[in-house]
Amino acid sequence: MPARNAFYAQSGGVTAVINASAAGVIETARKHKSKIANVYAGRNGIIGALTEDMIDTNRESAAAIAALKYTPGGAFGSARYKLRSLEDNRAEYERLIEVFKAHDIGYFFYNGGNDSMDTAHKVALLAKEMRFPLTCLGIPKTVDNDLPVTDNCPGFGSVAKYVAVSTQEAAMDVVSMAKTSTKVFILEVMGRHAGWIAAAGGLAGKAPGDAPHIILFPEVPFDEKAFLARVRDSVENYEYCVIVVSEGAAYPDGTFLAEAGTRDAFGHAQLGGVASVVANMVREKLGYKYHYAIADYLQRSARHIASAVDVKQAYAVGAAAVRYALEGKTAVMPVIKRRSDSPYRWAIEPAPVARIANKEKKLPKRFISKDGFGITEACRRYLEPLIRGEDYPPYSKGLPRTAKLKYVPVKPRLGDEFMI
Amino acid sequence: MPARNAFYAQSGGVTAVINASAAGVIETARKHKSKIANVYAGRNGIIGALTEDMIDTNRESAAAIAALKYTPGGAFGSARYKLRSLEDNRAEYERLIEVFKAHDIGYFFYNGGNDSMDTAHKVALLAKEMRFPLTCLGIPKTVDNDLPVTDNCPGFGSVAKYVAVSTQEAAMDVVSMAKTSTKVFILEVMGRHAGWIAAAGGLAGKAPGDAPHIILFPEVPFDEKAFLARVRDSVENYEYCVIVVSEGAAYPDGTFLAEAGTRDAFGHAQLGGVASVVANMVREKLGYKYHYAIADYLQRSARHIASAVDVKQAYAVGAAAVRYALEGKTAVMPVIKRRSDSPYRWAIEPAPVARIANKEKKLPKRFISKDGFGITEACRRYLEPLIRGEDYPPYSKGLPRTAKLKYVPVKPRLGDEFMI
Repeated sequence: MPARNAFYAQSGGVTAVINASAAGVIETARKHKSKIANVYAGRNGIIGALTEDMIDTNRESAAAIAALKYTPGGAFGSARYKLRSLEDNRAEYERLIEVFKAHDIGYFFYNGGNDSMDTAHKVALLAKEMRFPLTCLGIPKTVDNDLPVTDNCPGFGSVAKYVAVSTQEAAMDVVSMAKTSTKVFILEVMGRHAGWIAAAGGLAGKAPGDAPHIILFPEVPFDEKAFLARVRDSVENYEYCVIVVSEGAAYPDGTFLAEAGTRDAFGHAQLGGVASVVANMVREKLGYKYHYAIADYLQRSARHIASAVDVKQAYAVGAAAVRYALEGKTAVMPVIKRRSDSPYRWAIEPAPVARIANKEKKLPKRFISKDGFGITEACRRYLEPLIRGEDYPPYSKGLPRTAKLKYVPVKPRLGDEFMI
Repeated sequence: MPARNAFYAQSGGVTAVINASAAGVIETARKHKSKIANVYAGRNGIIGALTEDMIDTNRESAAAIAALKYTPGGAFGSARYKLRSLEDNRAEYERLIEVFKAHDIGYFFYNGGNDSMDTAHKVALLAKEMRFPLTCLGIPKTVDNDLPVTDNCPGFGSVAKYVAVSTQEAAMDVVSMAKTSTKVFILEVMGRHAGWIAAAGGLAGKAPGDAPHIILFPEVPFDEKAFLARVRDSVENYEYCVIVVSEGAAYPDGTFLAEAGTRDAFGHAQLGGVASVVANMVREKLGYKYHYAIADYLQRSARHIASAVDVKQAYAVGAAAVRYALEGKTAVMPVIKRRSDSPYRWAIEPAPVARIANKEKKLPKRFISKDGFGITEACRRYLEPLIRGEDYPPYSKGLPRTAKLKYVPVKPRLGDEFMI
């Protein structure tokens, strides 16, 4: 069988290490030129396939592809673009197949989260139905760590390391000045529905009294009274209180704290910033001096403090996806299996994308302390290996170097304009 | 002359490298035991002297003191506590001298900003008046970089590196998803009166169109119309817009943007968060999807990404202060003099604390681009050497290691309780 081309696309929120997965795909494909002639990367993810806007990665040097391993963001552009169901928008799926046919694309690598695995699954089904030979592989990626089946998700280890390090550092700042200055510090982190990232803040605390003193998880309905009592206890016992709050922290009725009604001068509802909501509560009910930080995109782009384990795993799932494809496996995603906590041992295995699509793995109860404000030892054993090791990017003039790509476009063959 | 003791205190907001200055003081003093018998560190800064609450640093191992070089926060506690004028509160100054007498303290090292240099100056004056032989040395420290005379301030280089790196990383995240997601990203940084930290964000941009596209300085009165036009231009030309905003950004009448009137659900004015004010402006006037991050204490405690130049200078000013003291210099502070930009060369010189006390050095006009939204090449030449080099702390289990001190208290000799 002559070599065919591969299509690779990044999907959804990017991570500090998604480009390491891209490097894993491209470098592994380059070792099998007899089967994969070229990897075309979608510009802006799947939109690049729909609009025939693809990047010819064969035109990129080996050094540039290797540099992807330390480049944050999505090197080819990612997209928040979910293909609708086959029934609702068959035209889009057919368009994908049409573009793949026109460019002799026999391999589809989709690097994303739950939604993307759903898309990979549907594309595989439709290709089969249309009798177009296409090998569809999912590649896991999400800072949220909420994919089922896999022990953890590439992208999470690095955000976890960022949050744990930042919590430890900020806590040392706060405690050293608590006598005469800020007593309560709040760090807002990502995680709309699952508290994995917030839990990682808990790694900073090793002994009783250590920060963080409170973690607010989306999985634990917010109890204002218990929360304020805990803040007061912490300030009274330790002179300060460090709080890590997930953006998804919510009241028992499901309303996000962040939606809880701050209004601007014009009376417009103001969204976002659960940290400021919590801070106001502390100020109004307890009167302590506070500060808050919102990590936002800094946390998921912080390649400078990436976890070495995470970088390695992100690369490994990209490389494994290509190997599986070459073995003829389709509609699968490489998942990470944990063999042991200490020493930390892991392996990569294939799992059907259908098992991963549209499912969300929340923080299990056994990972949350009884009072709901902290993590358990079991959680610590799970999280700790994922933030191990530093994988520093090279620097130039004080700033991290990043991949310089040529972005040579693949010549369109269909020519028509597809409206998305 | 028999050896006497030294008193060392940290003052005001801490930095990622203030403990490197402490290490410089203690390690240098240990080399001159015949003159400095012991360094007593004030617990919670100057409050520790007033309340006779001091830490015996002779009880700390060489390894623990060396570890201060990579430990953020204020290892002995810092304080936001400004001694009033000599006329208003002579008792406090006299108490200081009394404590120094009781513990045979002949050297006073005060590690802080403008206020602290004022205190060092006054203590020197009073000691002279009271004929108590005391050598008073200031040691510069401030993330704000606003001390006069010195070319730059220890603590600033590291926060500058953090802000430059974070701006670069977050920008790569935003640009890769701008097609279908966030178009405007806002990073709020410190700097209530001077825009040095915000300016550091400008280092991330090297070519036209690079982020950050807009910097809002305290030195430039905010012009909403010009700002919004620039945001629109940036999104239209580059598909995204990254904004670095100083917490001190203000309207022409001096009102901080952060005070500009957001109210909570109960109608209470909500302070803080200039980023959210700017974000709301963008949403209401332009309708772009936005995100914002507030770096807050993360930026000044981020020892994990400290500038190697900054760490070296922080240590050097501590060491120089001890050398000056041993040479009999008093009421001086070691300042950093720049010999050349490229290669970057610097030296330490003494300067009278009176020249530094209570003065603020703002960003000069020639460092701000004509349109008021960026930095000039002169600014870049000034800033770049300060973020050079990485000085990583050692890690254990994925987290930075920090100094473990014994904190053995110095036995009080006065016994009475002094109310502060």
